[in-house]
Amino acid sequence: MKKVIIIGYGPAGVTAAIYLKRTGIDSLVIGKDLGALDGYSDLVENYYGLQEPIEGNKLIQQGVDQAKKLGIQVITDSVISLKQSEMGFTVQTQHKTYEALSVLLATGKTRQTLNISGFTKFRGKGISMCATCDGYFYRRKKLAIIGCGAYMQHELEYLNRISSDVTVFTHGNELTCEVQNTVIKDIVLSFKGDEKITHIVTDKGEYPIDGVFIALGVPSSVDFASQLGVIVEKNNISVDENYQTNIEGLFAAGDIIGGKLQIAKSVYDGMQAADSIYSYLKNKSKKA
Amino acid sequence: MKKVIIIGYGPAGVTAAIYLKRTGIDSLVIGKDLGALDGYSDLVENYYGLQEPIEGNKLIQQGVDQAKKLGIQVITDSVISLKQSEMGFTVQTQHKTYEALSVLLATGKTRQTLNISGFTKFRGKGISMCATCDGYFYRRKKLAIIGCGAYMQHELEYLNRISSDVTVFTHGNELTCEVQNTVIKDIVLSFKGDEKITHIVTDKGEYPIDGVFIALGVPSSVDFASQLGVIVEKNNISVDENYQTNIEGLFAAGDIIGGKLQIAKSVYDGMQAADSIYSYLKNKSKKA
Repeated sequence: MKKVIIIGYGPAGVTAAIYLKRTGIDSLVIGKDLGALDGYSDLVENYYGLQEPIEGNKLIQQGVDQAKKLGIQVITDSVISLKQSEMGFTVQTQHKTYEALSVLLATGKTRQTLNISGFTKFRGKGISMCATCDGYFYRRKKLAIIGCGAYMQHELEYLNRISSDVTVFTHGNELTCEVQNTVIKDIVLSFKGDEKITHIVTDKGEYPIDGVFIALGVPSSVDFASQLGVIVEKNNISVDENYQTNIEGLFAAGDIIGGKLQIAKSVYDGMQAADSIYSYLKNKSKKA
Repeated sequence: MKKVIIIGYGPAGVTAAIYLKRTGIDSLVIGKDLGALDGYSDLVENYYGLQEPIEGNKLIQQGVDQAKKLGIQVITDSVISLKQSEMGFTVQTQHKTYEALSVLLATGKTRQTLNISGFTKFRGKGISMCATCDGYFYRRKKLAIIGCGAYMQHELEYLNRISSDVTVFTHGNELTCEVQNTVIKDIVLSFKGDEKITHIVTDKGEYPIDGVFIALGVPSSVDFASQLGVIVEKNNISVDENYQTNIEGLFAAGDIIGGKLQIAKSVYDGMQAADSIYSYLKNKSKKA
């Protein structure tokens, strides 16, 4: 049982871990492969204290190194699901399952979105980003899930319980997990329909469909949050003044809670969230 | 006429300057000699992104270098007085006088306090840190001012207007400015009195006195703020949610406004204050 699991090892996550360490609380920090950090290659020059402008992903690597030097456990893995458990939370990664009393979501805002014609039009009208959230509305329907890895597999498990007709579209990728469903490796070109989605159009044909679930790549904090019923407003996770979501013990910090998308703000968030997590754990241990 | 003068080149001041620069606003940043930064030699290791733990004053130097590289004007000088003017503020340093539309106080919290017996007991009961604030209560009294440089000289000017009997105590230092008053170079050992201060005791004798003004070293933000009538609570400058003090156009950020005395917090403050100063200047130019 971990006291805290921090998902994301950017500025917010690492800062929270450093400040928690200062109060004697060890956290496990889980971040995804730095190679996957697209969109973080821009030069950072406005973060205080930099000797030279530095690429975003190098700064993140530097932060990870800093945390490790301070004795913080940092691992590279992909979290594919987050669930509430009796004691707190169950965090499932591609390789392992962890239990934690509290969780800090700090994955930043990058997420796989689909640059496919019709995606924006049908989002919420047949296209969903969260099987647990929306699956219920698609009971016994003809469904598609787009994805190829562990995250897709996890979402698919849920969909298979509500429908016997779920097709996997890998969107041109190789499947990196095992599934029993029909798998189509075509590249998806567009989504078609009138009011609601009716077809997936690929480079090789058209497939009639009632609902499409997107589970490409690795889920974002918003995905985790949605799975748990956390309030999300305009793609930002809602937190109170203590950086706690509407679920007790689940905290969020950094870009994912909105506000300025700046390292300075994420670092500040991380520091403040560490404080709140510390208080939360202290109270919890008093009650126990 | 400067748009913004930032007093202090620590994390808050430099961050504000960097963010202002981003919005196209040039500021003048004035900081005191880094050699004078006592109490900043501790190792910093909990600020996000550091490759190695770094001494506080080295980090400050690094911040100054960063600002300069980004084209920000940073000078080393001692601000000895801050006054409101028709257009905004007059900032007087040891070497020059500047005019600015707005000012950000970000000097941090280090200040010369006196490790002299009786100082705490008589503070507010005959010992004052601000001639402009308290001088009025000492009209035509027998006064002493403790100090040796430009700041003392500035405070003395005021005192000379309210009393013809002001003695300068250099507390063992050489005088670095010219004054017409009696100068005593003894080392001050203690302050004596019952309810109120009655004597200054030095290594060479006792001097009867009604009031003592302290003006050693360089004034802190709290000193400036006091001079202007800014609300100060528990040695913290009070600011609103926009980092503005009760005086329009006068902002404060960093340790000086209270809260966590952490670089992460000062940097955040600096970023947020820059935003507010930007808005303030924009509104001001609209009205003009």
